[in-house]
Amino acid sequence: MFKIYPALKKDCFELGTFKLSKLLLMNDSQYPWLILVPMKDNVSEIHQLDESDQIQLLKESSFLGKQLMDMTQADKLNVAALGNVVPQLHLHHIARFKNDTCWPKPIWGQNPAIPYPIDKLKIFIDTIQKTLELESNNIKFSPL
Amino acid sequence: MFKIYPALKKDCFELGTFKLSKLLLMNDSQYPWLILVPMKDNVSEIHQLDESDQIQLLKESSFLGKQLMDMTQADKLNVAALGNVVPQLHLHHIARFKNDTCWPKPIWGQNPAIPYPIDKLKIFIDTIQKTLELESNNIKFSPL
Repeated sequence: MFKIYPALKKDCFELGTFKLSKLLLMNDSQYPWLILVPMKDNVSEIHQLDESDQIQLLKESSFLGKQLMDMTQADKLNVAALGNVVPQLHLHHIARFKNDTCWPKPIWGQNPAIPYPIDKLKIFIDTIQKTLELESNNIKFSPL
Repeated sequence: MFKIYPALKKDCFELGTFKLSKLLLMNDSQYPWLILVPMKDNVSEIHQLDESDQIQLLKESSFLGKQLMDMTQADKLNVAALGNVVPQLHLHHIARFKNDTCWPKPIWGQNPAIPYPIDKLKIFIDTIQKTLELESNNIKFSPL
């Protein structure tokens, strides 16, 4: 049974599941920040996935990235697999704005997270649900 | 005629060409740091590439990432498409060590670059050439 690594789970909301990956929302209201976690155990690097899983991750990442950019009308997308702190493979997707607090620096290791106020959180999750055509009952994504 | 964006060109050595991407070495001796630049004009995001080019970029990235990790025996690979400063799509591959100067932080926006001394540079480029089976004359990679 696949499990999200505790440090990721603690900082994120789990929004649903693609064919390969779970989708998480980082609880930091400073940036729209979504994370894909392929449901494979003991994998830290993209190149350690089977080739078919690598391509599936790419499809999910590109779909998510495009939708996130269309949804937020951000200036730039940052996509990254780092994993220096959390060894479980996870792929960040962060919508960046030229007037956000870190621009143009990458956001990791800069400002402490500012959790979403509950009303803003509900609106953002609702927007993600509608944009990604989530089934609203169980936050389950339509398959890619 | 495809051109590398000047700010990238200034900081890097151009080592060769894969089917889709040019391979650059960042002139910062603190970390083994290679960059793929797909030879497509006016593209800033991975999801803006055609699907076949996305898959080719993934293949080149995974090949390069695995070889870089095998070559350096590093602790973790950082792969990222950021582009907040240089808008031309480019994909970083950085071999990280638990005793490098930034660990576990991402390296961007931290220490100023420390250019390679020429002898170390020659050795590193020679190692990359041998590992990636470069044709030694013209630093042209074997096609993937």
